[in-house]
Parts: sequence; C-alpha cells; structure tokens
Amino acid sequence: MSTFGVIFRVTTYGESHGKSVGCIVDNCPPGLSLVESDIQTQLSRRRPGQSDLTTPRDEKDLVAIQSGTEHGITLGTPIGLIVPNQDQRPHDYSETDLYPRPSHADWTYLQKYGVKASSGGGRASARETIGRVAAGAIAEKYLKLVYGAEIVAFVSSVSNIAMPFIQYENEERAFPQDFWDFLNNITRVEVDKDPVRCPDKETSEKMKERIILAKEAKDSVGGTVTCVIRNVPPGLGEPCFDKLEAKLAHAMLSIPATKGFEIGSGFKGTTLLGHQHNDPWVKKNEKDILGTKTNNSGGIQGGITNGENIYFRVAFKPPATISQEQATATYNGDSGVLAARGRHDPCVVPRAVPIVESMAALVIMDALMIQNSRKTTASLLPSIRDLPPSMLGAVQNNFKSK
Amino acid sequence: MSTFGVIFRVTTYGESHGKSVGCIVDNCPPGLSLVESDIQTQLSRRRPGQSDLTTPRDEKDLVAIQSGTEHGITLGTPIGLIVPNQDQRPHDYSETDLYPRPSHADWTYLQKYGVKASSGGGRASARETIGRVAAGAIAEKYLKLVYGAEIVAFVSSVSNIAMPFIQYENEERAFPQDFWDFLNNITRVEVDKDPVRCPDKETSEKMKERIILAKEAKDSVGGTVTCVIRNVPPGLGEPCFDKLEAKLAHAMLSIPATKGFEIGSGFKGTTLLGHQHNDPWVKKNEKDILGTKTNNSGGIQGGITNGENIYFRVAFKPPATISQEQATATYNGDSGVLAARGRHDPCVVPRAVPIVESMAALVIMDALMIQNSRKTTASLLPSIRDLPPSMLGAVQNNFKSK
Amino acid sequence: MSTFGVIFRVTTYGESHGKSVGCIVDNCPPGLSLVESDIQTQLSRRRPGQSDLTTPRDEKDLVAIQSGTEHGITLGTPIGLIVPNQDQRPHDYSETDLYPRPSHADWTYLQKYGVKASSGGGRASARETIGRVAAGAIAEKYLKLVYGAEIVAFVSSVSNIAMPFIQYENEERAFPQDFWDFLNNITRVEVDKDPVRCPDKETSEKMKERIILAKEAKDSVGGTVTCVIRNVPPGLGEPCFDKLEAKLAHAMLSIPATKGFEIGSGFKGTTLLGHQHNDPWVKKNEKDILGTKTNNSGGIQGGITNGENIYFRVAFKPPATISQEQATATYNGDSGVLAARGRHDPCVVPRAVPIVESMAALVIMDALMIQNSRKTTASLLPSIRDLPPSMLGAVQNNFKSK
Amino acid sequence: MSTFGVIFRVTTYGESHGKSVGCIVDNCPPGLSLVESDIQTQLSRRRPGQSDLTTPRDEKDLVAIQSGTEHGITLGTPIGLIVPNQDQRPHDYSETDLYPRPSHADWTYLQKYGVKASSGGGRASARETIGRVAAGAIAEKYLKLVYGAEIVAFVSSVSNIAMPFIQYENEERAFPQDFWDFLNNITRVEVDKDPVRCPDKETSEKMKERIILAKEAKDSVGGTVTCVIRNVPPGLGEPCFDKLEAKLAHAMLSIPATKGFEIGSGFKGTTLLGHQHNDPWVKKNEKDILGTKTNNSGGIQGGITNGENIYFRVAFKPPATISQEQATATYNGDSGVLAARGRHDPCVVPRAVPIVESMAALVIMDALMIQNSRKTTASLLPSIRDLPPSMLGAVQNNFKSK
Repeated sequence: MSTFGVIFRVTTYGESHGKSVGCIVDNCPPGLSLVESDIQTQLSRRRPGQSDLTTPRDEKDLVAIQSGTEHGITLGTPIGLIVPNQDQRPHDYSETDLYPRPSHADWTYLQKYGVKASSGGGRASARETIGRVAAGAIAEKYLKLVYGAEIVAFVSSVSNIAMPFIQYENEERAFPQDFWDFLNNITRVEVDKDPVRCPDKETSEKMKERIILAKEAKDSVGGTVTCVIRNVPPGLGEPCFDKLEAKLAHAMLSIPATKGFEIGSGFKGTTLLGHQHNDPWVKKNEKDILGTKTNNSGGIQGGITNGENIYFRVAFKPPATISQEQATATYNGDSGVLAARGRHDPCVVPRAVPIVESMAALVIMDALMIQNSRKTTASLLPSIRDLPPSMLGAVQNNFKSK
Repeated sequence: MSTFGVIFRVTTYGESHGKSVGCIVDNCPPGLSLVESDIQTQLSRRRPGQSDLTTPRDEKDLVAIQSGTEHGITLGTPIGLIVPNQDQRPHDYSETDLYPRPSHADWTYLQKYGVKASSGGGRASARETIGRVAAGAIAEKYLKLVYGAEIVAFVSSVSNIAMPFIQYENEERAFPQDFWDFLNNITRVEVDKDPVRCPDKETSEKMKERIILAKEAKDSVGGTVTCVIRNVPPGLGEPCFDKLEAKLAHAMLSIPATKGFEIGSGFKGTTLLGHQHNDPWVKKNEKDILGTKTNNSGGIQGGITNGENIYFRVAFKPPATISQEQATATYNGDSGVLAARGRHDPCVVPRAVPIVESMAALVIMDALMIQNSRKTTASLLPSIRDLPPSMLGAVQNNFKSK
Repeated sequence: MSTFGVIFRVTTYGESHGKSVGCIVDNCPPGLSLVESDIQTQLSRRRPGQSDLTTPRDEKDLVAIQSGTEHGITLGTPIGLIVPNQDQRPHDYSETDLYPRPSHADWTYLQKYGVKASSGGGRASARETIGRVAAGAIAEKYLKLVYGAEIVAFVSSVSNIAMPFIQYENEERAFPQDFWDFLNNITRVEVDKDPVRCPDKETSEKMKERIILAKEAKDSVGGTVTCVIRNVPPGLGEPCFDKLEAKLAHAMLSIPATKGFEIGSGFKGTTLLGHQHNDPWVKKNEKDILGTKTNNSGGIQGGITNGENIYFRVAFKPPATISQEQATATYNGDSGVLAARGRHDPCVVPRAVPIVESMAALVIMDALMIQNSRKTTASLLPSIRDLPPSMLGAVQNNFKSK
Repeated sequence: MSTFGVIFRVTTYGESHGKSVGCIVDNCPPGLSLVESDIQTQLSRRRPGQSDLTTPRDEKDLVAIQSGTEHGITLGTPIGLIVPNQDQRPHDYSETDLYPRPSHADWTYLQKYGVKASSGGGRASARETIGRVAAGAIAEKYLKLVYGAEIVAFVSSVSNIAMPFIQYENEERAFPQDFWDFLNNITRVEVDKDPVRCPDKETSEKMKERIILAKEAKDSVGGTVTCVIRNVPPGLGEPCFDKLEAKLAHAMLSIPATKGFEIGSGFKGTTLLGHQHNDPWVKKNEKDILGTKTNNSGGIQGGITNGENIYFRVAFKPPATISQEQATATYNGDSGVLAARGRHDPCVVPRAVPIVESMAALVIMDALMIQNSRKTTASLLPSIRDLPPSMLGAVQNNFKSK
C-alpha cells in the first residue's frame, strides 16, 4: 500500500524513470504557512549529486505545490506535490534485462507483479523516497512551529567505523553519560558540516576514507543512522498494535536498504538488569510534570511518549547495486557474471539522514493528531467525581487541569 | 488503534483485570477446519505459571469460539474469541496508586487518557497479548495447511548469555554456515524441551541460572528472541510503506517490552561490503524458480519475499516491574522508594516465543491475502503481447504461466 | 469488513446461532461514565418479542461489559461488549437446506464464501445489528452529555400508509412548514407511545392494521424510517469522499433490508428550482454564527454540518422471509415451492428505529473525533496575519476566536 | 479523508483554482494495457463546455500519466494522474468574499477549516471530481476486459420531467416489465445521442427546454441519474458494514449536490408486499448457477451481488450557485442580497453521468479485489469432507468446483 498514516496521511507515487514522482498529503492542519522553500530544504539534502560520496545522477528535485494552499497558507485540503524526473538514462541498466540484481528487488518485483519496470529500480528506486521527504517536511514545520520539536538524524556508523557511544562497553549501562548530553544538543547545522553527516569529526574522516575505498573497489558499504526527536509532548502513541515505537519501526524499515531498528537502549539494553535499565522518575517542573533521570526508554513507555527525547538507530545494508563482477544467475536460471553499470551510491547513509528525519516527522505528526482527537474529545466531558485516586494518578484528572 | 492487518484483521480488547480478554478475527478464509484446541496450544505456551521462571499468576487461559464457525468449519464471517480472566488480585498493586512504576506505562497512560486503570497494567498488561496469540494461531493453521509454512521462534539470548551465532565474529560474513542449517531444521518440539525455550542446551542452562539469580535478587533480565519462517511463497509484502520487513518490525515492536528488531544480517550486516552481503541467485528447480546461495536478506528483497527463510531477531528489555526497592518519585513528584509487590515475570523471553510467532503469522497471512487479491485479479487479464523482455524478466509473464 | 469508523471504531461479530454476538468499541473517549444500563435501553428497544408486530423469538439481549471501564468510567481502551444468544432453534429452518430464500442472503453468501451457516441467516441475521446498537448507545451518550445532541428516529411510512409530510405535494417546496417544527420537537418518548413507533396517532393505527393483515396473510410489509439529529456542532464531515451524508448513507444502507436513503429535501428536492431549494443564511446569535431560514440541505452543505437539524429517511423493503408459499428453485436449480418456517418479523421498521439511531450516532461521533483532531491541531498554530479577507470569511480566523 | 477504497484505492487532490487536479490510483492490477486515451474518454464526457446546457468554463481536461505504467502496460505500482487547470478566473467570484452562498459549502468549509479558498468552491468545486473519473476509467477498463462488465448511467429525470419507469404506478410492482429489458440494453452511445443524456427522446426534449428555461431565469434545476451495471460476478460486497449497496450509497452521496440514493425497487419497493417484492430463483444455466426471475433486489442480496443487473438512482439537487438575486446574510450576519457571478451549470445531471459511472466502477473494482483475495485464499484449502449439506447449499463446496 502506498499510504502512510491514519489522519496525517501521505500517499506517494513514482518510479525512477517516469515523468515525475510526488505525493498527496491529506489532513494537513489548515492555517499553516507553507511555500515550496519550506519543503525544498530537505529535498535538497536528500537529492543525489551532493558530493563525490553519492551517486552522480544529477537531479535538482524541485518541488511544485499543486493544491491545498492559497496565498502561502494551507487550506486543510489535500496538498498535491510534484517533483519532475529529469536526468533519466534508461539505457544504463541493460544488463539487468538478463540478470536480476543480487539482493535487489528485481526478481521479487517480478514474482509480485508478473511484470517489472524495464530499467532501474522502478518503484524500488530510492527516488520513491522523495514523496516521503516532501511530506515529512510539512509535518516537521508544524511540529517545530507549535512545539519547538527538533528532529536531528546523523550517521553513527559506516561499516565497522562507529561513533564512540556505539562502541561503549559497560556491564551496567547502555550508554556513556555524555551521550545523553550530545542528544540534547546536536543540530542539523553540525551534522551537515561534513558530507558524511557524522557529527564526530575524527570518526567522520575515517568514514569518508572507507566510502571512497569502497567506491574505488566498485563495492559498497553499509552503516547506521541515529536520530533524536526533542520536544515531543507526552501522551503520543497508541497502546497495543500502534505503539509509537512500532510505528517508528514500521516507518524506518520501510526505507529502502534498512535491516534493523532499535529504540532507546535497544539491543544493548537486553543485557542489563531491571534495576539498571529502569528510568527513575523525577519531578521536572512546578506543574507536577514528571521526567526521567536516565532515558533507556528512548522517550517511550508502554508505547506512549513520556516527554523525554526519543532516539533510535536504523541499520542500512551496503547497497545491492555494485559495479563489481558478481557470480549469479539470469532470470532463466543460467549461471553468469553480472557487473551492473549505472549510477549508484557506494553508501546510502549520508543521503538517508533526511529520509529518516522525514519518516520520524510523519509518525509523530500522525500520533499527535490522533491524540489531539482523543484529548479534546475527552476534555469536553463533565468532570468525574468520586473516582478512586488510584484511577487519577495524582489528585486531579489531568485533562481537566489543562 | 486496536486493529492489526488490512484484510486478515485482528481487533483485540481487554485489561488485566476485566471480565475477559479477547479478539475478533475478520476475513478468515471460509472452509478452514477450526476448533478451540487449534488455538489453545499456543495460548497454553503463552500462559503464565508454566515454570518457576515465569510469573506465579495462574491462568488457564481457555479460549471459547463465539462465532464464525459451524460444525468446526470457518464460515468466512468474523470469529469472536473470548478468554476469561480468572486469577485477578487487584489489591496486589496498591503501592502503584502512589508511584508510577519506572519504565512502565503507568505515567504515560495517565498522560494519554487523563485517567488510568487502578491496578496492574490495565491495557498495558501482558494479558493484552492473548488476543494476538489466539488470532495468530488461526493464521498459522492456514499457512501450515496450505503452504507447509513453519514458524519457529526461540530464545537466542538472556542478558549477555547468547547462542553462538550471535557471538560469531567474522569480518566477511554475518553468520557461521551452520546457522543457515540450524534455521532450516529447528522445531517447536526442540524449543520446548527446556523451559527457557533456548534450543542450545549448554546456553540454555546458563540462561536458566541467570534468570533464577535475577528472580532471587528481586530483579529482572532481558533477552532476545529469534524467529524463522519457512515455506513462505515469494511475492509477499508491499513496496514502499508496507514492505514485509516494515510490517514485521511494526508487529514485533508492538509486543510489550521490545526495544529492537533486525532482519536477516541486521546490524551486523551494516559492517559488510556489498559483495560480501549480496546473496547471489541460483536456479532452484526445474520451474525456473530462483533461490539465493546465502541469505543475508532474511528472505525479503525490496520489501517482498523471495521464497527463502525469513528470519529476524527481537530485543526484549528486562521487565520494568521488579520487587527490588527503587528510588523514584510519586505521581505528585515527591521523591520516595517503590518496591512493587504483585506477581511478575523475572524474564519475559520464554513466554514471548509464542507471541513473536503469532505476530509473525498475522503479518504473513495478511500479506498473503493482499497478494492473492492482486495476483488473481491480474491473472484474469488477457495475455500481454509484444512487451520488451526487459519487462518480463524471463520469457513469459509469470502470472500467466502458473 | 466488520469495522465501521476511522477513530471511533466499532468491530462486530456474531451469527444468529452462535454462543454470543458482540463488538469492540475502539477509541471511546476516556472519562465517560458508562455502565451496562446506558447501553441496555437501546438494546431493549431493538430486541425481538416486544409486541405482536414483531418476531416471537424471545431474547433478553442483556449486554455485559468485558473491558474498557473501571468503577463505571471509561479508560479510553477498547470496550468489549457481549450479548449471549439464548433462544436458538436451529431446526426451525430446515427447508432452507434445500432452498435459498428468495431475496435473502442464502445464495449470495454461498457464492461469497463457498460454505454457509446451516440455519437462519447466519451473519445476515438481524442479530448482527446488536453490536451496532450497543456501540451506538455509547456514542450517543457522549454526544448527549457534551452537546445535548438528540437523535430521534421514527416510522414515517408502512407500505403505502405514510405520515402527512411525505404525502405533501407542493411545486415550490419539499415539505410543509410544520414539518420543520415537528423535527425540532419530536422525542423518543412520543415515538415509543405506540408499538409501531410512528408518532402520528392516526397514521399509526392504520399502520398497525396493515402489519397485522400482512402477518395473518403470512406475508410482510416494508416502510420507511425518518431520523432527525439535533444539536450537532457545525464543521463535521470530510469533503470529497467522506462527506457526512455519504457516511450516513453508507451507515444506513448497511442495515439489513434497506433499499434507499435521502437527506434533507431528498428526491423531492430534485423537482425544485435553485431559488426555491437554496436555504438563505440568517444571523443566528450574537456570536456571528449563521443559521439557515429553511433546511432543505438537511443540516449538511458541501458534506459538512452547518449546525441545523440533520434529517434523513431510510427505505426498508418488506422482509424476505415469509411463511407464504413461494414458487422458486432449490440450490440445485430444481423448481419447487418454499414456505419458510421459523420466526420472522412481518415488518422490520418498528425495530429498525433504534438501529437507525445507533448508526447515526456512530457516524456523528466519528466525524466529531476527526474534526476535533483537525481543529485542535490547527488552533495551536500561531495566528495568520495579512491574509486576504476572502480567505477568512469574516474578519477573524474562526479557530483562533474560540 | 481523500481516499476511497480498501485495495483498489484512489486518493485525489485539487482545488478549482490550483495548478492542477489529480489522483493516485493504488493497487491497480499489473499487466493491464493502459494509455491516456483510455482515461480521456470519460474525462471528456465530464468536462465543462460540452453544450449550452452546461457551464461555459472551458477546460480541455487533458490527463497525463506520471507513473505506474511502462510501454503502455500497468506495473502494479501507484498510477499518478495529473490534469492541469487552465481556464481559471479567480476574480469572477468576488461577491462571495462577503456572502457565503446559500446551500453551498462556503460557510461550512470556514467552520471546518477556520480558513477558506478565496475564490470558487475550492475543494468543493466540481473539478474535484476529475480525479474520481480518471480513476474510475481505469477500474472500468479492467472490468470490461475481464468480465465484459458494462456500466451505463443516464439522466432519468430533470425537475419533475421524468422517464416513464419513474412515473409508473402499480400497486403490485415497482417497475413495468419493459424497464428490465431497457436496463439490459441501454448503451452509452444511445445516452450520448442527446446533450441531456436522457435516452428517452420525448422526455429528453422536454428536459432540454426545462434546463434552458432555468438558465434564462438565472436559476437552476435538479434531477436524477439512473445507472445500471451489467455482468458483475456474484459474490461481491461484504456483509455487515460494507454491503455493496452501502458502498455504492457512500460513493454516490459523496458526489457534489447529491441528496438521495435508491437501489433496485428503492423507495417504491417499500410499498409492496413481501410476496410481490421477493425475486424468485430460477436455474440460469447448466452450471447450476441460479438467477432471479424479477430483480427488485437490484442485483444485491444481503449486501452481496447475485449476478443480476445492479441498478440504482441518485438524486441531484438544483445547483446552489445561481445568478438570480437571493436575500441572504453576509459572513458577519448582515442581511443583504447576493447575485453570484461566475460560470455555473444550470443543471448538473448531464455532466454527472460519467461521475456516477466512475464511482460505480471504483466500488465494483474494490469489492472484486477483496473478494478475489478471499476466494483464492479459500480455494487453496484442502477439501472439506463430511460437512452437513445445509452448509454447502448444493452438493459441493463451490470454491472447489471452479
């Protein structure tokens, strides 16, 4: 299905070699100031050809708003967004008429559809992510304006070169103390200082070398992207199937080339004891709002945000399309050797950064709109009297006091 | 939202201390032989009180089919399933009238709803998973009957005690060769030989000790569950947002206490080079069906199954509810010490095994029904002539040839 | 699909002859006082055996809340509702083993599922509506408490015996003036004074005779139900596909035995001229809220409520199951004569009244929760300056002023 | 929400005065031959400026496929469709800066969104229907190719000038016999012979006069559109909430200016007795497929198609925008007189014909894809033995025998 979200809904279309790619954003709140440049910034961070670490395919990826705004203000109606495809070279990929690329979608698409796009990845191309990034930019603008929310992703590892917090080893805790501080302060400006988008200068240099090395060997490398979301109000996420971490995991694993997701303490957290892993409560401010001392939970408890930073890490495999010769088989099952021509990224993580941010924004925005529905609808009810305090947590019904 | 799935849809209800928990399974295929015992087996593997490694809460968890079958055959109409709650002890949890449990859902539920269940976890209780397991058992029965599909989950680590394939270190590959063989052969019978549900005897013994140790210390431990799904047809999973791994990640991260998910080579795979990670194609049988030599992809490429084993790993944190004293704050923000009474699991992974399997079954079954819709609808079209071979992969339109 | 609604979602289960029928109500606002008796009233108005105008099947239809409330207050979590089936007589229907009933669902269910319930209507039984009525009663309670909303349906015709406003003929207007007043004042108490549930005494007497006549002739009669919804806030309903009248039409045509739906002036309105049909605006009160002088629109314009009374009419065919002999064919295609035994309603409209009301409540409640999401989310945005007045209607952005 | 359908899903965007209108069609079956001209035919039947009976706004409404096809064949991926807006005249509507048009969406949109499009109907413009018609044309092409399905709508009344079958009065039957024959044979060619699109020449002439009369009086007239769908396979439509007639009603009442819907015998059918209304079964052919002698059911029983013609009628009110002076109020509540300039249709029914057909095609196509999912999934199950014949209708399980 090509739709994501329940209320704030995005539907995308587009292959690598059609006329355009784009999306429709449904149920964007009316009254939001929105022009193309609000969206373009993230599209330009995603676009190919930004540095010699990425594919040489050259696309400006200029977005045009078709509907849903007037005088630069959203109307509340569907926002149609279109990005023309420009630098198409269908002939680049002719070997793949014979060979399904190993670990790519060529063969599985054929199994699914009985027919496939004749060139490039078709719908499995990374160009499919343009619609997501465009839609995410709108969600993000709202979240920033209203909550001061900040979503910052960065490259935390390339191949086995990782930022220190990942290599940290301690039997009693998942992360070093300065990791929490880092998550509080990292900005996109810092992330973008370097084309690898790793904000640790020393690590970043090594990563760059590693990527160039792979590129020269006509090979590819994987990596991970870590993302933090700050200033998200508590109460977002639905219990049971639509826990916020479940929606984030869904969103992240829907990005091409992803292989894993972990939130908060993640896989490391499984090795801690309960008393080490639990995040004790502390009074946060005068309004009786609680916060947690540590944040192994990653800002989510029971599927619902607690107001602390949300952070998670996403694993990206080395891109499947490499120019190196690979022994494999043709569609007909004959053994042979494939060396894929075409223009490919030796490593996707630098360009994945805005995609991760955008998908995160979509998840938060939709969760917010669902919770706003519930909260407003509940807040209109007459106050409940004589309830046992056990049902009210503190003294009052929280919805009434706000 | 309490519904999971697009066609094969499950909607669940139930708190820890209501009259019953249950679910409605919509769009189960008609004509499937189905009686309570088909469902009970997995419910009994999930139920508490199975060994001294789990909570002493004693629930038989007997399921009763309310609708959707007659003479033991499904009618195609919604299947209502009910499991009464029996061993309720609301008074066990009175400390939590004052204290939100650290890393539990008490405070976030209050933020979400403005009111909360007065005892136990309410909807955040593990009893919520009963509906999922019941529904998953139906999906699984279908998949086994029609495709011989086998879904086997097992405990792959408890705390830092892990099965050898997890500890395997090799710069050029993610897993040892015998791991693939192991995934081909592991069965539930072997998994259930030991109460920890780790099929590696040596590791299992250590795990058991570790859990007992934690239990005696009124503490808890985390772990991981690995799951393999065999004999899934190729072509399942939707490109873009609803890739099969995205739905699996969604499903798994919706299980209480989960912190991470990885498919195939997962986080390890990010350290490999493209040529090491790619799974070369080989002819699988006379029907021109391809397979892969290695399986770093975890049976999914471009979001779509390729017919190989699907396998993934899920991270579970140490349970938040521990009887050990914890310094924390009350709902009002006053500092204090909480020692939670009540009946709790020191480690959830043994009981999580059937839950992981059930959620996997729900994802596969729904993906299958969506793909069956497309495939059948497409197969009725007249044959396409004169298409470039590049669009047909091999010579023929696959849907026509089957 | 057995689910209705986007946010306020109802999923039902149950055949005529299973253990129970019931439903799960998802996303009910937390903090609503709710006990079984709130739901029972409408279930009892729907239940069979209320008078000699309805089926003699005797069911108490007592509802039991399984989850989602504590101490009589909703928790915001799914509300499980169960109503046991008691008076089952599977053997009543054995003729229908051979004959699909004319104009009933027997043959189409078989086409759909390849298998069918062996007795009664299975899922096509009117007992299926119990879940809807139970869920609707919850929605209605909220709407009444918060908005003073009143939903009143009544029987407006039985066979060709119709209330005067239906028989009204005037080239320039759809309804007589006193019809608008009547809609402002009609109550359930008045509707229930008579077993036919037609609030016009003279008409009602004739209807009763007509139904008895049909019953004695082992025949059945149809009729229409008109429904008014008062005190619904403006702004509900989504443009385009999910216009409020579209959702109401969907809801009403999903009730068994319905054949038509008209809102406001309906089919009569198609014969008027634009200047006769248009509802002129008038100032309603000091808050610059507008209202309309006439109400041919039925309270909805452009798919969105305008604050005036919503009213519509639903057509019910004569029930298909009659004991009179009918020349028809067996499942195998052999000609023959069927005289259906069993217990059947000679006319469904009196019992349809609470079903119509309940479906209406579900539609309004869901539309309200969707609109609350949008409105709250939009209201948090900073004020828009320098917009052309043409975009703001009056002087101010309405969302900011409330 | 701007999406329609569960599997075959359409999402639309576009205001009257934005850059373009369009849609995304998701889950179109792969392998369907599809080029722009397949879609253009219906768009051209819908476009304004076709005759002097419709609005003088001149739009070519040329569609461009953006994605989802290659070499004229659908890939199974989302089909992006764009139609540029050309003849925009935003200044035409300046009176409506002050006055919300009576019975139009101006005021309700403002209530809904707090802001509104400054000119024309914005999203409430009839241009919104372009996306529906484009998507419907694709659905229709499939249905025709595979099932020979034919969907033909026509104008059955304008104001009080109606085709004979509507004026037919008979206490014992809803329609004259020749109406059934007419529905079997009517074609689009015949419908299009006249600009009113009423296939009864005598009636059509009177309708034309009536429309011209209204136009000259700066007034507008309403009417009804009747639609027949032939050659739809049995088994489509979901019991309970998503009965096929419920989805059709939803679809039709979502078309701008509609006020009513009736299927089969409709409101007339409510005056018949059960034995007159029931459609007796007859053997249809050698394959034991049954059909019905009469068709008061309108091709649907229990919400599911029975293979007979589906037919229904839709009521359209006189268009709200008229140039005649109307006494009404401004947004601020001041009394005044509005004479709306701009280009408007004096009667929408001729142009509504392809919209009704398209929405019908979308409903049928989606129902078909849902049923194909169930049927295929069920057909793979092993045969059921020893079931009581009462569950199998005839001798065999139908799904197995096909």
